[in-house]
Amino acid sequence: MKTYLISIGDELLIGQTINTNVAFIGNLISDNNISIIKSTVIGDDIKIILNELEIASASADLIICTGGLGPTHDDVTRNAFVQYFKTELIHNDEVLEDIKSMLKRRGRELKKTHEDQAMVPKNAEVIRNENGTAPGYWIEKDNKIFIVMPGVPYEMKAMMSNHVIPRLIEKIGEPKEFIKKITLQTTGLPESIVAERLGDIDELLSGAKLAFLPNQYGVRLRVTVKSNIEEQASNHLLEIEQKIRSKVGRFIYGRGDENLEDVVGRLLKERELRISVAESCTGGGLADRITNINGSSKYFERGVVTYSNAAKVELLKVDEDVMMEKGAVSAEVAMQMAEGIKSTSGADIGVSLTGILGPTGGVTDKPVGTVYIGYCDDKVCTAKRFQFGEDRILNKNRATQAALEMIRRSLLGIAFEE
Amino acid sequence: MKTYLISIGDELLIGQTINTNVAFIGNLISDNNISIIKSTVIGDDIKIILNELEIASASADLIICTGGLGPTHDDVTRNAFVQYFKTELIHNDEVLEDIKSMLKRRGRELKKTHEDQAMVPKNAEVIRNENGTAPGYWIEKDNKIFIVMPGVPYEMKAMMSNHVIPRLIEKIGEPKEFIKKITLQTTGLPESIVAERLGDIDELLSGAKLAFLPNQYGVRLRVTVKSNIEEQASNHLLEIEQKIRSKVGRFIYGRGDENLEDVVGRLLKERELRISVAESCTGGGLADRITNINGSSKYFERGVVTYSNAAKVELLKVDEDVMMEKGAVSAEVAMQMAEGIKSTSGADIGVSLTGILGPTGGVTDKPVGTVYIGYCDDKVCTAKRFQFGEDRILNKNRATQAALEMIRRSLLGIAFEE
Repeated sequence: MKTYLISIGDELLIGQTINTNVAFIGNLISDNNISIIKSTVIGDDIKIILNELEIASASADLIICTGGLGPTHDDVTRNAFVQYFKTELIHNDEVLEDIKSMLKRRGRELKKTHEDQAMVPKNAEVIRNENGTAPGYWIEKDNKIFIVMPGVPYEMKAMMSNHVIPRLIEKIGEPKEFIKKITLQTTGLPESIVAERLGDIDELLSGAKLAFLPNQYGVRLRVTVKSNIEEQASNHLLEIEQKIRSKVGRFIYGRGDENLEDVVGRLLKERELRISVAESCTGGGLADRITNINGSSKYFERGVVTYSNAAKVELLKVDEDVMMEKGAVSAEVAMQMAEGIKSTSGADIGVSLTGILGPTGGVTDKPVGTVYIGYCDDKVCTAKRFQFGEDRILNKNRATQAALEMIRRSLLGIAFEE
Repeated sequence: MKTYLISIGDELLIGQTINTNVAFIGNLISDNNISIIKSTVIGDDIKIILNELEIASASADLIICTGGLGPTHDDVTRNAFVQYFKTELIHNDEVLEDIKSMLKRRGRELKKTHEDQAMVPKNAEVIRNENGTAPGYWIEKDNKIFIVMPGVPYEMKAMMSNHVIPRLIEKIGEPKEFIKKITLQTTGLPESIVAERLGDIDELLSGAKLAFLPNQYGVRLRVTVKSNIEEQASNHLLEIEQKIRSKVGRFIYGRGDENLEDVVGRLLKERELRISVAESCTGGGLADRITNINGSSKYFERGVVTYSNAAKVELLKVDEDVMMEKGAVSAEVAMQMAEGIKSTSGADIGVSLTGILGPTGGVTDKPVGTVYIGYCDDKVCTAKRFQFGEDRILNKNRATQAALEMIRRSLLGIAFEE
């Protein structure tokens, strides 16, 4: 089965919106052993959509379209499909009920535009939208499947995961070739050093494929193996994973899509430990990531964002003289902040960040990108210096990642030195 | 001039990397009055690239390709271009010098792969790459322009801004038609209500185009006008903006790419006010957004993330009896938190958030998505209830957006009621 993705929307063409939908769909589709041959972006124009559907159906078996299903005048996708299949719109009761119950949950009234969204192409099966008012459509014709969904990412994602993928799997049946993939997430080493440590790639892989995928949090290593026998593919993958772990194991914090805050949260929960954080430069970014995890109230006690020096003294008992002498951005202050938040909150672990994220504020011995991270538990109290780059937001994200990694390594007893 | 963008790379197709290049290029190109007709993503395969170049050159005058110019075996874009133009590779001294000086700056050695990158298609003019080793190419044939650049965003961006755009502007000369755009950012109203309040769209626009761009933070309204006379386009745009503002003005917080935290930061700075925040459910997300702005230390005093009830009592002096009676998620506690952070920190404004972000923890009268936001300054102390959706992360972002909007409206004296 060959897939062709069509994203519809002027805002995507002129760069007003970054298209994250194609990556999400591409990932999910290829994870289910379905290949993607092409992805296109076109404007909100019926003629252009019709032409693109012609092109897509000439080369692919599965055509997935997103965007242009909203309630406003610039949304023309539904009409394009009605024309393409020479069909008409009919009222769908189930869709109207879905819309009504969603509006009720949000305390909103039913309007004429909502009722209009319950009109669907006659030849379509509805794909339910639990998070919005525009339904999706599943249309089959001449052995080809056309799927249409709204472009709003969180609406589309739920529809794709809960309805489209299960149905596609049912449709395809047992695959002829098994493709197995694993992604190992590393942090703390640049791409070139990871590559160097892995050594001879051909020997490591023996026919498998390895992609290096660097981002702001680290380097993801994606291994792909293929085989006609499922067990063989699984074994080969396991073997490669073990080899990679033997070379860069302590830099690997997770598999698949796991975030470092998931991993750290699980470790804290298992060990029944409570953590508090004191942030200066990251301004709440670390607490934000920790509390992104459902159930984090079990192990996250509190956080303080001590942006001003007064706040550092009042809330964390940082010694003013030390701050004057060593500077607010120093190992000493980082340690005092970590110790301060631990003792004032009564948590088992205290973590702190203080630094200069830029773009301004750097000095000779502490240029932009300098961050100290403090860590204190009942046994140790330490601080480590990091040197990140010039971009404020990237620095924030890298600093919170390094702090989470420091917690992970401390909990697992893995030395932080490289 | 019509533009066709081609992104080359397997990692883009299978969704391992989000394609941010097309948005960047699309934005820059359309800002310079050049239209974009289509954008496609294809895999690293010579045959497919050749076929795509055929398709692109049949419909567009400007073809911009990115990706697949790296030094490894899976980078085949350069060879595809050599085949497409039936040309050959020749050594280019200027490129080699660029590579050498870049390597020197980074303290690295020249390798064989680097020398190979100095081989460029004979018919190409080189586009210099100041941030990497792979040069770009500018090729003209049959009145069409082909531009090829590496896919690494920060390399491509500099090449595009510094070399490609200036040259395109020179090439095009004075535009025959002027396209003017404005984006107005609204928050607090769903797309359908914005549309309803704008009323008769045709009357509003009189020939211009309006796009509704909803995201988790609100609905952006993008207006585009075209005219042969530049001043006429500007005046028409201004007129439409005024009409829109007369209908949904108080929901508009910014223009263009401005974030709400930018706007709020600017207002606080202008008024020389300092703010502190107390967060429960958003876990530091509000402080994080406020401190994303360079210079926020001028107006951000401190934040506390009082996840536990103990922290609410100790750090914010919330009354334990009130918390028992009304619940931690209540208007009363939100107000006490805002008042508490204001008075303990000595800031001019205190803002608080307490709620249930989900996916678990909802109760009948306070379902998942219930959030109270408190606001106190020297004149008022108030709290407002919001009902968001079911997704934890989206709820976090919506709640921080609502809090920022509450600050903006308070500072500007705009009533919060709809």
